[in-house]
Amino acid sequence: MTPITKKIGVLGAGQLGRMLAIAGYPLGQKFGFYGMNGEEPSALLGHMFFHSSDDVTSVDALAKFADVITYESENTSVEQVREIAKHTPVYPGEKSLFVSQHRGREKGMFDQLDIPCAPYQVVDSLESLKIAVEEIGLPAVLKTTTEGYDGKGQFVIKDADQIEQAWQAIGNRELILEGFIEFSRELSIIAVRNAANEHVYYPLVQNIHQDGILRYTIAPAQQISEAIQQQAESYMQKLLDELDHVGVLTLELFETLDGLVANEMAPRVHNSGHWTIEGAETSQFENHVRAITGLPLGSTAPRQTIAAMVNIIGETGPVETVLKMPNAHLHLYDKAERAGRKLGHINLVSDSPEALFEDLKALSGFMPK
Amino acid sequence: MTPITKKIGVLGAGQLGRMLAIAGYPLGQKFGFYGMNGEEPSALLGHMFFHSSDDVTSVDALAKFADVITYESENTSVEQVREIAKHTPVYPGEKSLFVSQHRGREKGMFDQLDIPCAPYQVVDSLESLKIAVEEIGLPAVLKTTTEGYDGKGQFVIKDADQIEQAWQAIGNRELILEGFIEFSRELSIIAVRNAANEHVYYPLVQNIHQDGILRYTIAPAQQISEAIQQQAESYMQKLLDELDHVGVLTLELFETLDGLVANEMAPRVHNSGHWTIEGAETSQFENHVRAITGLPLGSTAPRQTIAAMVNIIGETGPVETVLKMPNAHLHLYDKAERAGRKLGHINLVSDSPEALFEDLKALSGFMPK
Repeated sequence: MTPITKKIGVLGAGQLGRMLAIAGYPLGQKFGFYGMNGEEPSALLGHMFFHSSDDVTSVDALAKFADVITYESENTSVEQVREIAKHTPVYPGEKSLFVSQHRGREKGMFDQLDIPCAPYQVVDSLESLKIAVEEIGLPAVLKTTTEGYDGKGQFVIKDADQIEQAWQAIGNRELILEGFIEFSRELSIIAVRNAANEHVYYPLVQNIHQDGILRYTIAPAQQISEAIQQQAESYMQKLLDELDHVGVLTLELFETLDGLVANEMAPRVHNSGHWTIEGAETSQFENHVRAITGLPLGSTAPRQTIAAMVNIIGETGPVETVLKMPNAHLHLYDKAERAGRKLGHINLVSDSPEALFEDLKALSGFMPK
Repeated sequence: MTPITKKIGVLGAGQLGRMLAIAGYPLGQKFGFYGMNGEEPSALLGHMFFHSSDDVTSVDALAKFADVITYESENTSVEQVREIAKHTPVYPGEKSLFVSQHRGREKGMFDQLDIPCAPYQVVDSLESLKIAVEEIGLPAVLKTTTEGYDGKGQFVIKDADQIEQAWQAIGNRELILEGFIEFSRELSIIAVRNAANEHVYYPLVQNIHQDGILRYTIAPAQQISEAIQQQAESYMQKLLDELDHVGVLTLELFETLDGLVANEMAPRVHNSGHWTIEGAETSQFENHVRAITGLPLGSTAPRQTIAAMVNIIGETGPVETVLKMPNAHLHLYDKAERAGRKLGHINLVSDSPEALFEDLKALSGFMPK
């Protein structure tokens, strides 16, 4: 135990917990995870507290172990977090979780803070959906208000005769209709705040999705003016302060002719920040650990001209190719292969965009077909 | 389990095992440690196999768990390694361990391979010590042949009337008398070899000791000609091949007017290579894991102009200072404070020697008084 050692309890035991632990041990922190079984990505990297038939007991054991609790997913139960927070601090706090796990509440907060976002309407019936389509126009995207990720629970309505089909496909629950945004690129920004009110921001990155799943990230995004970076940071500053947020906060954005439009946020370390492990002076994982344990935040400066993160999805693929590339860094999550599943990622660090794109070509075996 | 996953068993559970695990999990590897108790630096980072009254059984359990075994210390029992290797591969192999745990055998191999080293004589009595002093001359260093580290078990004999005192201080066992080498700097080089006979070499670094303990390392060592780097690599290539070595091998060297003189070697990741965690494209830890699991070796190129590693010794010290420095990276080992004990290290990465030396000054709280 060093003077700065804290025991960190993580709700979840997936790859995000795994990478938090790998970043946190060098700071002298200790980890415990609330998980399903000993095969999960974090299982070997700290104490495991397994879900049981009596969930209250096992979460309670984690909370007793821990000096501070954090979580891997915005779908974590708010009730559970509120209960734990009576005795053990939970970061990010309940408000960050409550707002970001519901697209309607999230958009409401963007509106309240004058952060541009798509027009939207929460609907709970076919009739209210039809009215929303009238107001917002088409094309529009129908989404579940909660629990959607990696493009799941979404339906793009292009034509009025698809409304019923869309409702049947994901309906019979609360949904949100969002106006379609004409954008040139999908960007994201990661910010970190600690309880001493330090704020730090990583540079905007560009994210390339396929079928709703992030395939690769370019960091920093190229041809971003200082004004646009400042705009993104100003959105984040408002969100961090309004939420009294402690930890990493991620905001996905659309780049449009009128500036940046907010898409959605996540109160956690994020796939679009995985490049920071080798790519930034301090990784998003280390900065999250620093923030929630009350330590000073680290520099977010990139360590090279340009970096990229390539997701390994579905199958592990030709990893020996990666190991033979001098500037490539492999990160596997120890997960079994399954279609659409994130199994790992590759970080590339380069001296020039040209060199980076050559390296990306060499990784074509990991790219969408 | 990914296609390249191997279970690695480590004999020992200290900071070297800890850093091997932190580097190895991203490659999909799993770790088990043979340790004393649950408080050791590696204890939370994998399966623990505790020493018991019946040591054979617990080492056997580790060997059964593991696909490959490695060790943290050159003082590991050769007999134990030989026993394990009947069923589970052990890297580096028995010969590397056997030679490097005895200064006499080590020097014998240097001689055999035409690697310059100090004149020496193994002695086992006061009489044979007196004869050795006659032959080698004074000043000379008297050392234990085995188990010395961090300057322990050494006595510098400057004058003939100290011979008896030196023998009393560390004698009554086999010793080695080494001629004193006039050197300008202490350097070291780290090399890695895998079973496919790939060799890679890190640049020579400069090590600054106090009271026999490494205090800081400058990487690369400044003003090293290409010829001197080549000389160091040629020594290493001969040693790696002669030993059929698999894994990291470290050689400590004296820089003299006549070139590089070998001091001692270690068949393992080494304190003078800790800078590679942030400082090189692939750390010594990752390359050791790659080597012993049969993967291609990674680039040893530095990621910046110059780096330094500062040991944290005895007390944890002003770590918040470190956390506030943008180019500093903290690595704590989760060990209790104790005089002379290595508790962690700080890696500095810089764009220029001038900037690095400014950062080193800011870390004066960690430097020898």
